[in-house]
Amino acid sequence: MKELTMQDLVAFCKTTGLIYPGSEIYGGLSNSWDYGPLGVELKNNIKAAWWRRFVQQEPNNVGLDSAIIANPKIWEASGHLSSFTDPLMDCRACKSRHRADKLIEEWVAAQEKQGKKIDAKSSEAMTDAEMEEFIKQNKIACPVCGKTEQFTPIRKFNLMFKTFIGVTEDAKSTVYLRPETCACIFTNFKNVLRSTRAKLPMGICQIGKSFRNEITPGNFIFRTREFEQMEMEFFCHPNDSEKFFTHYRKECMEFCKSIGLDPQKLRFRDHEKEELSFYSKATTDIEFNYPFGFSELWGIANRTNYDLTKHQQFSGEDLTYTDPFTNEKYIPYVIEPSVGVDRLLLAVLCSAYTVEELPDNDSRIVLKLNKNLAPIKVAVLPLSKKLEEKALQVYKTLSKTFRTQYDVTGSIGKRYRRQDEIGTPYCVTVDFDTETDNSVTVRDRDSMQQVRVKLDELEDWLTKNLK
Amino acid sequence: MKELTMQDLVAFCKTTGLIYPGSEIYGGLSNSWDYGPLGVELKNNIKAAWWRRFVQQEPNNVGLDSAIIANPKIWEASGHLSSFTDPLMDCRACKSRHRADKLIEEWVAAQEKQGKKIDAKSSEAMTDAEMEEFIKQNKIACPVCGKTEQFTPIRKFNLMFKTFIGVTEDAKSTVYLRPETCACIFTNFKNVLRSTRAKLPMGICQIGKSFRNEITPGNFIFRTREFEQMEMEFFCHPNDSEKFFTHYRKECMEFCKSIGLDPQKLRFRDHEKEELSFYSKATTDIEFNYPFGFSELWGIANRTNYDLTKHQQFSGEDLTYTDPFTNEKYIPYVIEPSVGVDRLLLAVLCSAYTVEELPDNDSRIVLKLNKNLAPIKVAVLPLSKKLEEKALQVYKTLSKTFRTQYDVTGSIGKRYRRQDEIGTPYCVTVDFDTETDNSVTVRDRDSMQQVRVKLDELEDWLTKNLK
Repeated sequence: MKELTMQDLVAFCKTTGLIYPGSEIYGGLSNSWDYGPLGVELKNNIKAAWWRRFVQQEPNNVGLDSAIIANPKIWEASGHLSSFTDPLMDCRACKSRHRADKLIEEWVAAQEKQGKKIDAKSSEAMTDAEMEEFIKQNKIACPVCGKTEQFTPIRKFNLMFKTFIGVTEDAKSTVYLRPETCACIFTNFKNVLRSTRAKLPMGICQIGKSFRNEITPGNFIFRTREFEQMEMEFFCHPNDSEKFFTHYRKECMEFCKSIGLDPQKLRFRDHEKEELSFYSKATTDIEFNYPFGFSELWGIANRTNYDLTKHQQFSGEDLTYTDPFTNEKYIPYVIEPSVGVDRLLLAVLCSAYTVEELPDNDSRIVLKLNKNLAPIKVAVLPLSKKLEEKALQVYKTLSKTFRTQYDVTGSIGKRYRRQDEIGTPYCVTVDFDTETDNSVTVRDRDSMQQVRVKLDELEDWLTKNLK
Repeated sequence: MKELTMQDLVAFCKTTGLIYPGSEIYGGLSNSWDYGPLGVELKNNIKAAWWRRFVQQEPNNVGLDSAIIANPKIWEASGHLSSFTDPLMDCRACKSRHRADKLIEEWVAAQEKQGKKIDAKSSEAMTDAEMEEFIKQNKIACPVCGKTEQFTPIRKFNLMFKTFIGVTEDAKSTVYLRPETCACIFTNFKNVLRSTRAKLPMGICQIGKSFRNEITPGNFIFRTREFEQMEMEFFCHPNDSEKFFTHYRKECMEFCKSIGLDPQKLRFRDHEKEELSFYSKATTDIEFNYPFGFSELWGIANRTNYDLTKHQQFSGEDLTYTDPFTNEKYIPYVIEPSVGVDRLLLAVLCSAYTVEELPDNDSRIVLKLNKNLAPIKVAVLPLSKKLEEKALQVYKTLSKTFRTQYDVTGSIGKRYRRQDEIGTPYCVTVDFDTETDNSVTVRDRDSMQQVRVKLDELEDWLTKNLK
């Protein structure tokens, strides 16, 4: 089977209604995307699976949904206002803009592909001066025009989108779209503790949109300016932080596998000491092998007590925790597993997309999604238009419980293939015998086997088999 | 029972963990709110109920999830750039800012409360000059300082939040946070038709955040600058538009009742001819009687073919539909039912909050939520700490299926009351007999009746009773 390219996948997503180019009839808007009828269902199912696993099934964890626009002092405290920046370089020759760290990263990867061994530290661990020097020394060319030694010095570019609240546009009214969902978990720490009467350790989980004014968005939904995150801040005693770091590092990987990511395409990458933020004790990325190579999917970090300490300092509120058994007072350590919904969805699609050879030189595309994630659980297909009345009755009953699709157009074979393509686990065919034997044919997406099921047992049959 | 005030409700929401003031440790941010552990569950359940009703259970409807930041030409076409404005007036005496239409609305309401009959058209139907004149004639006072005749003339204030995409901040890079979710439903109309191979009539539904730079946000989560909408655009033949308008007007009201809104507090308000936008054939609001009076909850509008026509004109794309049976070509009419998630959640809370008198001068607070919407479905309560092991086993089993809470702190009576207060339908008590009879006591929130249920039948019992 030939390798899936990003180009194939983008076209497939548009045709099937998973993902459309954003603002398409107006010529688009720099790598923005809209989730179509199937995409929104898949995304909702991924979010629900994460919520079930990390909120619902953990007695110590709870959810939160904070505002996107918050008091700007939060970004002062978190350091985002001063240092959430990208190292920006312009090419003097063609005026294109680049991230210095990405220029180096891509150049090193290209060299290594040619078998050359580059002895350099990761660009994330370099200072600006080191990056400028490295680019100069190695005569790294502009990826757009190919010219060398035309880059300007590095400028720091803040990635937060700013806007103005109220009727004037000045510094006093400037606010920011959150660049990550976790900050307001910290600011709500005491509120959550108080209202849930929880004891540590406890996790607070949030799903929501974040915004980063990326210089070079790209790779479909992998890096976009508007994206959705699923983050947990797990608060614990400093002595327990390594234990919980190890625990969640493992649990996140297990979760990836449980929702159907190809285990062959998953790996851990522990951050080098030089890469770590000064406050972090340890960080691991779970990387996925996308069509464009291994890239970060999930970050798990031991952030120590850095965030709560900063917010305590900037807000003047006491954010210490008092252990009800020992009376020990301390600022909790935090383990943060953070994953992008869009990246996870992309990895799900890359793992599920299959071209299957069939007898007689035939083939089919099957989206072998975990049944739990499938956008449509069951399709109701009348064999003939004459059977519509009965089929719509079946649709009406099933749709109370399952995301069901009704399709009457085209030959039954074509309709099966369409459902395979969008990953529907079961097709229910209403045929001319249905009236007399009160049964339907149920076809399995993966095995293509068909079984006859009584109508009054259909809902139970599907419930059992969709588990 | 004394009437629920907004103040009571805000305090209740904070204490229980439904809703916290946004950015609270930093002194807040003008009427922004964060949903706490219970609030996020309640909100998710409301969204899921709407999705199930209007997407899942309608064979012709599908979902969508488009980007918040879209190509700004969309807002040119929709008219938002030129006319999505509020009539702003400053009080010269105290510098406070007001919406002229709201000043009039509140003054009229106050007069009518005193039994005076005011013969004036709705402020929404007035021109700016008419509003200025009305305020002057009636010597309407500034609600902040009480002075009269100090208002400036009306200025038009655009409600869209603007920000800058890319590395420069100029007109060319200006983009807007969407002020409503529906616009990108129109721009994706052809993509959805093509990829779903749907025939009209069909509805496209979307849930998501919208942003409006309101001059006077207020009334808790009723009017905030950042809010969540659930909108459907139902595309149909012009001749069918009145039929579907009537249909969805009824269905939306039914939905409100089905999720537990107090029918006594719901009413329709059909817009007067003068209030209607020039393109609209009909608009009805469903209003709810909040503690601050009847206010708009849900708008249902017949928007004719206005939006698609505008987008066709501005984008140059053909947005006509060809009927596959008759070959008739036309630009579809659109019925738009649009409701705010936060407003709906507020109405749900106002309907469910109950103070119940009990024997012996006792009373309890019960959140009589529809079971479907309850943030926590079941609480597992060990009668004694000695029973924790068994109780955690029960929690672990149930939490696979239900949003379950585990609580071991305080007397069993206190724990029941806590669960009543947050609307948990069932409490499962593990007691000293559980070990021997393999059964637990299940207590009903509303009747407070207790029944003994076998552990191996508990999941089925709950599934059946939570339906």
